[in-house]
Amino acid sequence: MEFRIEARDPRSEARTGTIITAHGRVETPAFVAVATRATVKALSVDDLREIGVQILIGNTYHLVLRPGAELVGDLGGLHHFSAWDGPWMTDSGGFQVFSLGAGMEHGVGKIAPIFPGEEIPRPKGESLVRVEEEGVWVKSLLDGSWIHFTPEGVIRWERLLGADIILPLDECTSPFHDRDYTTRAMERTHRWAERALAAFEKTRDIGPNPHQKIFGIVQGGAYEDLRRRSARVIGGMGFSGFAIGGSLGRSKEDMYRVLEWTIPELPPERPRHLLGIGTVGDIVESVVRGIDMFDCAAPTRMARNGTLLCVEEEGFRLHIKSAHFRRDGRPIEEGCDCPTCRRYSRAFLHHLFRCGELTYYRLATLHNLRFMVRLMTRIRHAIRAGRTPSPPELLGG
Amino acid sequence: MEFRIEARDPRSEARTGTIITAHGRVETPAFVAVATRATVKALSVDDLREIGVQILIGNTYHLVLRPGAELVGDLGGLHHFSAWDGPWMTDSGGFQVFSLGAGMEHGVGKIAPIFPGEEIPRPKGESLVRVEEEGVWVKSLLDGSWIHFTPEGVIRWERLLGADIILPLDECTSPFHDRDYTTRAMERTHRWAERALAAFEKTRDIGPNPHQKIFGIVQGGAYEDLRRRSARVIGGMGFSGFAIGGSLGRSKEDMYRVLEWTIPELPPERPRHLLGIGTVGDIVESVVRGIDMFDCAAPTRMARNGTLLCVEEEGFRLHIKSAHFRRDGRPIEEGCDCPTCRRYSRAFLHHLFRCGELTYYRLATLHNLRFMVRLMTRIRHAIRAGRTPSPPELLGG
Repeated sequence: MEFRIEARDPRSEARTGTIITAHGRVETPAFVAVATRATVKALSVDDLREIGVQILIGNTYHLVLRPGAELVGDLGGLHHFSAWDGPWMTDSGGFQVFSLGAGMEHGVGKIAPIFPGEEIPRPKGESLVRVEEEGVWVKSLLDGSWIHFTPEGVIRWERLLGADIILPLDECTSPFHDRDYTTRAMERTHRWAERALAAFEKTRDIGPNPHQKIFGIVQGGAYEDLRRRSARVIGGMGFSGFAIGGSLGRSKEDMYRVLEWTIPELPPERPRHLLGIGTVGDIVESVVRGIDMFDCAAPTRMARNGTLLCVEEEGFRLHIKSAHFRRDGRPIEEGCDCPTCRRYSRAFLHHLFRCGELTYYRLATLHNLRFMVRLMTRIRHAIRAGRTPSPPELLGG
Repeated sequence: MEFRIEARDPRSEARTGTIITAHGRVETPAFVAVATRATVKALSVDDLREIGVQILIGNTYHLVLRPGAELVGDLGGLHHFSAWDGPWMTDSGGFQVFSLGAGMEHGVGKIAPIFPGEEIPRPKGESLVRVEEEGVWVKSLLDGSWIHFTPEGVIRWERLLGADIILPLDECTSPFHDRDYTTRAMERTHRWAERALAAFEKTRDIGPNPHQKIFGIVQGGAYEDLRRRSARVIGGMGFSGFAIGGSLGRSKEDMYRVLEWTIPELPPERPRHLLGIGTVGDIVESVVRGIDMFDCAAPTRMARNGTLLCVEEEGFRLHIKSAHFRRDGRPIEEGCDCPTCRRYSRAFLHHLFRCGELTYYRLATLHNLRFMVRLMTRIRHAIRAGRTPSPPELLGG
């Protein structure tokens, strides 16, 4: 894989570039659309092409449960199985180790607001995960069986799935994990990264895509020394790019600091992916700190829940269920070129959402993903034009 | 509205023609896609254009409940509200009088098989309908309130909805209704037809579409004399076309006889629509008896339930849930030109269906509706070529 850096903002760490994969190019900064089970929910591959999506990310945990990595491999890998023949990434299942483990126990996300003096909540759910040195046992959400995820096993599955960029097994820690646990988990993740890289080298002849590349994942929670150490260790291992995972602290400011500690320690010529982050503000703040790629389920999930992205609204969010829109003949967003705004009114989308019509989910998803694609295009244009990306400029304010 | 008959099969009553509406032409025999709540479930208007759908039918009962006929009228009628600017029909709600009335009581459809000597089942559900001379009270499925459907009120709602072809309120009887009840219901439907026509003439200035036309509905159950009488009465009233509604007896043979009694009594130069029928065999058998238009929810509903139309399979049906398709890399149907068959394998559709992925519903619906569109195209080609349509020829057998 080649990564060409093409333009830099002289006043920030923002940069544009192109990642060249065996299945096409990705212009960065890029938004990677989430296709957990080999499809972006409610969309087809023709839809994705039409709205300018460049690259998808599937989830190894979910795909191993159903339909199985062997089956996808036998059918030509994700590119052939899903009919999306552009660039693919696969996540390793490390995030599920978190969301089904500490996430389940604490009911917590990657950023957990706790006010000074507050206690960390006690566990309230049951962990579906057991982490050991050899790997992780994860309980299947389908049939309750325990599945063993090891660094080597995950690489083999990802070889069969055949994505262009794959991620090794890591342990994604929670904002509620203490420094001691976060350190031990990070060190284990480093050992797993070595094992994954070794397994990656040994499995070049497995699966449909001999041109696969692997990114390393930096951990270390919201601790400066740990993040710097993890970035130096993972950065020195020979990965083709880097993803920043795990706890990003307790606020957006914590998250921005994590990026400021991590990115300077990584090899500057390789792409940097921020895992699971995707609000407009976070994307812009991360780009100016040097992030090249994002993936996030929020734009598509919000669409399905009735929240449409719109620059004119507070927080860029329009809640289509609101009775305000019953008779509103305007498109979701004036000037939007998505297939939904070209044809449909807020009033009709309100009607479809209220009725639970299946048509709604696709139209809403098309709009929100197109919004993200346009946001990234504008970010790239701003950087190329020598301007530092900022939300008001990007959103026409 | 103009209806031009263009070709006739010399050996049957089959014919081709063109219905010219204010929103475009419909080549007949035609399949009218069901868009109960102003959308074909899971599809967009661009999808409908792409697969060659000519005309949609909305449902006055459902649209009056939500979002309301006044609102649709204020927003420019169905054409503007839904963004489908091609031809529209609206059903009157008469079928709901049946399905929520006798249909609920008896758990019965329009064709009810009863073997000789069997008793008609006793009522098992509660009727949500009260039929009176003035009109029908129908219980809302949304909030339990009773809504009054009168011949005049329904015409006013349909004027506001603005479809190109509208249907008057009728009483759709059940195969379990006896001759006496069927006669009285038919006579009442005739009186309602007169009232609807009078109301239609008086409301030319209401709603967005002054070019609306109205079809009469023939009733009379599975009784030869009643069907002939109803066809003559309704046929003499000055409607622009005719729909055949109500009970079609207890078998397909009963249904074909109903058509053979009814059609010769109708003015031959006007279009004939068979309400709610849409299997491949029934369509072909009805076309050769002189039917010009069909609507049926089955192809789209079957798609959502995992049943895909396919000429190669028994009964033309492929059940995508079957484990047979897990590794089947072929399209649903070899040679099908639908957007789904052009891109996707049975294996991927099986995976999407098993996962309950929203993407599945659209892809399956696109295929099944395209199957119906192609079936109708082949029927028209056969008639124009001087051949009598028959399933083996139409389906490439």
